[in-house]
Amino acid sequence: MARIVTVAAAQLGPIQKAENRASVVARMIRLMEEAKTKGANFIVYPEMALTTFFPRFYEEDRAKMDHWFEAAMPGPDTQPLFDKAKALGMAMSFGYAELTPDGHHFNTSILVDKTGAIIGKYRKTHLPGHVEFDPERTHQHLEKRYFEPGDTGFPVWRFLDGLVGMAICNDRRWPETYRVMGLQGVEMVVLGFNTPSVNSQRGAEGIEDRLFHHRLSCQAGAYQNATWVVAVAKAGSEDGNHLMGGTLIVDPNGKIVGELPHEEDGVLVHPCDLDETVFGKETIFDFKRHRRIEHYKLITERVGVGEPLGR
Amino acid sequence: MARIVTVAAAQLGPIQKAENRASVVARMIRLMEEAKTKGANFIVYPEMALTTFFPRFYEEDRAKMDHWFEAAMPGPDTQPLFDKAKALGMAMSFGYAELTPDGHHFNTSILVDKTGAIIGKYRKTHLPGHVEFDPERTHQHLEKRYFEPGDTGFPVWRFLDGLVGMAICNDRRWPETYRVMGLQGVEMVVLGFNTPSVNSQRGAEGIEDRLFHHRLSCQAGAYQNATWVVAVAKAGSEDGNHLMGGTLIVDPNGKIVGELPHEEDGVLVHPCDLDETVFGKETIFDFKRHRRIEHYKLITERVGVGEPLGR
Repeated sequence: MARIVTVAAAQLGPIQKAENRASVVARMIRLMEEAKTKGANFIVYPEMALTTFFPRFYEEDRAKMDHWFEAAMPGPDTQPLFDKAKALGMAMSFGYAELTPDGHHFNTSILVDKTGAIIGKYRKTHLPGHVEFDPERTHQHLEKRYFEPGDTGFPVWRFLDGLVGMAICNDRRWPETYRVMGLQGVEMVVLGFNTPSVNSQRGAEGIEDRLFHHRLSCQAGAYQNATWVVAVAKAGSEDGNHLMGGTLIVDPNGKIVGELPHEEDGVLVHPCDLDETVFGKETIFDFKRHRRIEHYKLITERVGVGEPLGR
Repeated sequence: MARIVTVAAAQLGPIQKAENRASVVARMIRLMEEAKTKGANFIVYPEMALTTFFPRFYEEDRAKMDHWFEAAMPGPDTQPLFDKAKALGMAMSFGYAELTPDGHHFNTSILVDKTGAIIGKYRKTHLPGHVEFDPERTHQHLEKRYFEPGDTGFPVWRFLDGLVGMAICNDRRWPETYRVMGLQGVEMVVLGFNTPSVNSQRGAEGIEDRLFHHRLSCQAGAYQNATWVVAVAKAGSEDGNHLMGGTLIVDPNGKIVGELPHEEDGVLVHPCDLDETVFGKETIFDFKRHRRIEHYKLITERVGVGEPLGR
């Protein structure tokens, strides 16, 4: 019997700085209803789905940014989303800025089952950007200022008759992200992102290049680990800062099976057969037959670039 | 001052089983002369450049296959290639089946400087295929029968004013290959391949899919490590067994800057500016700022797939 997960990649159009959580949650609920109508049983929303992409704003006093963070999940504003998911029997994943009871800040995603229970949490590992205001950039990208690197690693959960893992935005550019999950047998990686349309340090790198790198990274991760990848954008112009969009679903062969062509709220629904992962996992990417970990040591020994080993 | 390596990706058309080394070396020399005319200072030939792709032939007695291997490099048949390279001041890399003095068999590539001295040797890590005759396959792929996995790891050498590493064929599908070299600062990865046009275990996967996976793997490896990748095919029909071709050069941004459109002997020449690797290495793939090796441990702890870690 095929193991089908009908996933809805639920792109959010821009969220302006002034828009409140209740308004965003209402938009997310409308997308969930649309996803349900289209037969989905699992909906995936972007990174930082509840707010604008606030790391573009510099604030000297970090504590003044805490209003962008969620101290409880669900909280008063997000409870209606959980209620709706439970009512529809819809599993979900979304990202938000997390403030822990002991004062830590993470860029977080959760996995919620169809009863509304949070069964998995992932905290973003690869924070891009910088800590201090950078006058050289066309726009700021202060994730390293407002977040700590995640402390969860890349777990994979038994979820919806399969094995599901999470990543967030810049994580998708790092092959280690997919491989750590691949070594747990992952069959579907879900990830959200907020990617500016222009490289803040190289203006010539515009939206087509940015979309190219995004697709390349998701497709390679899918193929090289024989997994579905569901990548969901926050898109469009947030207070004049343009995010590129490019919500897409990649099959375990590395092929894009669907991509949203717009920058608005919208769902891309696809029935993903988890058994399509089997061929790759049993042949060319049968890790136990082909991997040679004795030659991979630098990957976990070195953080940065070191001396070349050839002599 | 720009650090330009003008590389010639020297594709070989098919080598029939009956063709001898001297004849192949003469073809390689013609390509080297063409490369020189086009301004190249470094020529890269395919995997197993001297012979047909013999792992397609099953032989119960392995020793009977030793005639495909080189016991000396250079040897009598290959000395003219080294002589020509020295005469032209051309650095080179090519692959061959290596038989060591103590009886080991490797799928090997070498890096030869412009004086004809071998300064680097790489032995293929990721051997595809199988050990025993497999009646289920449309064609045999017996690399695991005739070769041992390489014992060199993935060194990077100071070469031609830059940092150069090697890989062979199936290695290019494994992100670990590029990352181990990336952690040594690699600026150009050269690799040769012999890739059948059809998947021997899934006939529906034909040449377009095979070229897609090839390009995807080379482009992702280049982008994610900010390195040039030079991938060189043996192409066309060897005694009725078709190899896909697809010789290409990828820039450190992941873009294909040139690809040979045919399956014959031919060179693709491109001036590769090694300084184009700097932007990626200093920004989004500045490993020392962004990598989190504490979360990569499974990559070197597990060979194959193990239990999922989510709970």
